[in-house]
Amino acid sequence: MIRVADNLQIIDPAIQRAVDERNPRPIQNVVHKCVAAGAQAIDINSGPLPREAADRMRFLVESVQAETDLPILLDTTNPEAVAAGLSASVNRTIINGFSMEQRKIDAILPLARKHDVEIVGYLLYPNGHVPPDEAGRLEMALQLHAAFRQTGLPDERLIIDPIVAPVIWENGHLQDMAVISVIRHLPDLLGFPVRTIAGISNLTTGRGPMAKKRLLEAAYLPMLAASGLSFALMNMFHEQTVAVAHACQALMDSKIFVYETVPT
Amino acid sequence: MIRVADNLQIIDPAIQRAVDERNPRPIQNVVHKCVAAGAQAIDINSGPLPREAADRMRFLVESVQAETDLPILLDTTNPEAVAAGLSASVNRTIINGFSMEQRKIDAILPLARKHDVEIVGYLLYPNGHVPPDEAGRLEMALQLHAAFRQTGLPDERLIIDPIVAPVIWENGHLQDMAVISVIRHLPDLLGFPVRTIAGISNLTTGRGPMAKKRLLEAAYLPMLAASGLSFALMNMFHEQTVAVAHACQALMDSKIFVYETVPT
Repeated sequence: MIRVADNLQIIDPAIQRAVDERNPRPIQNVVHKCVAAGAQAIDINSGPLPREAADRMRFLVESVQAETDLPILLDTTNPEAVAAGLSASVNRTIINGFSMEQRKIDAILPLARKHDVEIVGYLLYPNGHVPPDEAGRLEMALQLHAAFRQTGLPDERLIIDPIVAPVIWENGHLQDMAVISVIRHLPDLLGFPVRTIAGISNLTTGRGPMAKKRLLEAAYLPMLAASGLSFALMNMFHEQTVAVAHACQALMDSKIFVYETVPT
Repeated sequence: MIRVADNLQIIDPAIQRAVDERNPRPIQNVVHKCVAAGAQAIDINSGPLPREAADRMRFLVESVQAETDLPILLDTTNPEAVAAGLSASVNRTIINGFSMEQRKIDAILPLARKHDVEIVGYLLYPNGHVPPDEAGRLEMALQLHAAFRQTGLPDERLIIDPIVAPVIWENGHLQDMAVISVIRHLPDLLGFPVRTIAGISNLTTGRGPMAKKRLLEAAYLPMLAASGLSFALMNMFHEQTVAVAHACQALMDSKIFVYETVPT
């Protein structure tokens, strides 16, 4: 399970200002701290970038790459920004991502083909809504995979995001248990070792006491790990979650004495 | 997932002394603290009780029952102690347990039939060794279930313990991942909704830094929970593990707003 930092977000006023001013420092500070905490990839959540999309995404990618050679994920709905990010990137780059929404099929998905890169596909309905249950997600996985295959890209370029639901949603925790089952069943459903990504921070979006939110993250992450999750998109500044992610790795992957692989 | 306290152990010198002196106080203190921490059943680990087995187990059961009416597990290899415990108990009582070891088939298993109670079956080889992998555990599950059915008891009286391996064993963490898979596959293998129990403390038996041991417990428990574990036998004084167990319950079972079900 690869730890992907979700910390670099344009919604953070310091990052927004850094992009406005083309000041790479605040961006690199965040990335530096993520790497120090054990991030293995950096998600660049630029938002839709309504102005100067290409130039701003290029700046973001170059700023991150000046700090680390970890893989990056281009997390935006703006095709122009995705294209600019792909052109600017020298490291492994993943488009994050597309869904069955028609404008994403038309404008984002072809960029994965053009640049021959991996792309995340969200298990969302074409109208952007979250399927309420496992059956809805599996149905969208079939549709998403069919659309993906139209590009001619090999299956291993596809990474599926089953969409973690906030637990404050009325049926949120039921959906989150369905997510675990979806991750487990996708390889059988689609007939290849499907890689998956899940946004851990989604779980506790919204109001609620901080300590309990962190605890829920720490409990949910190992469930995802044991189900075979490939990429955990997570806040690398949540110490408990990160510690548990390292412990999951020790339990699941370690070839050496396990206590040595768990950082203090 | 039912939280079973593993705290009441004769290996604890204070408990040994309490039993020697027939002083219920230290026993009840432990049970009281377990209940306060959220225990939902109490495992009475009396050891083999080489002397005064019946009298000592009776004293243990009565001491626990004077403090709580939670279900109890009779955790001993001594058939005389099991029989005395069953006779003394008034609350729901589970025998913990038997394996394919011949003397347990002969002397422990029939007590489940005689008293019509639930019994834990360990996935161990007849010589008491731990199977090295998933296939070995599943093979023992088939044999164990066949032996259990000889009693005529209904399947729902059987609880299977797939045996958590200490991570300090050379292939311990691989076995512990196999345990998760075993729990998930037992219902398909045996053809009924098999209930399972796992000893979480086994994971970190042996030397190793305390903080990392607790962290591994906290990471492993949700993996077991998500795989469908019925009973988590755990140290109720490990705060992080207990907090995560409550969070697992909130994620998996809650019908009310989830933050309210997770204790601080």
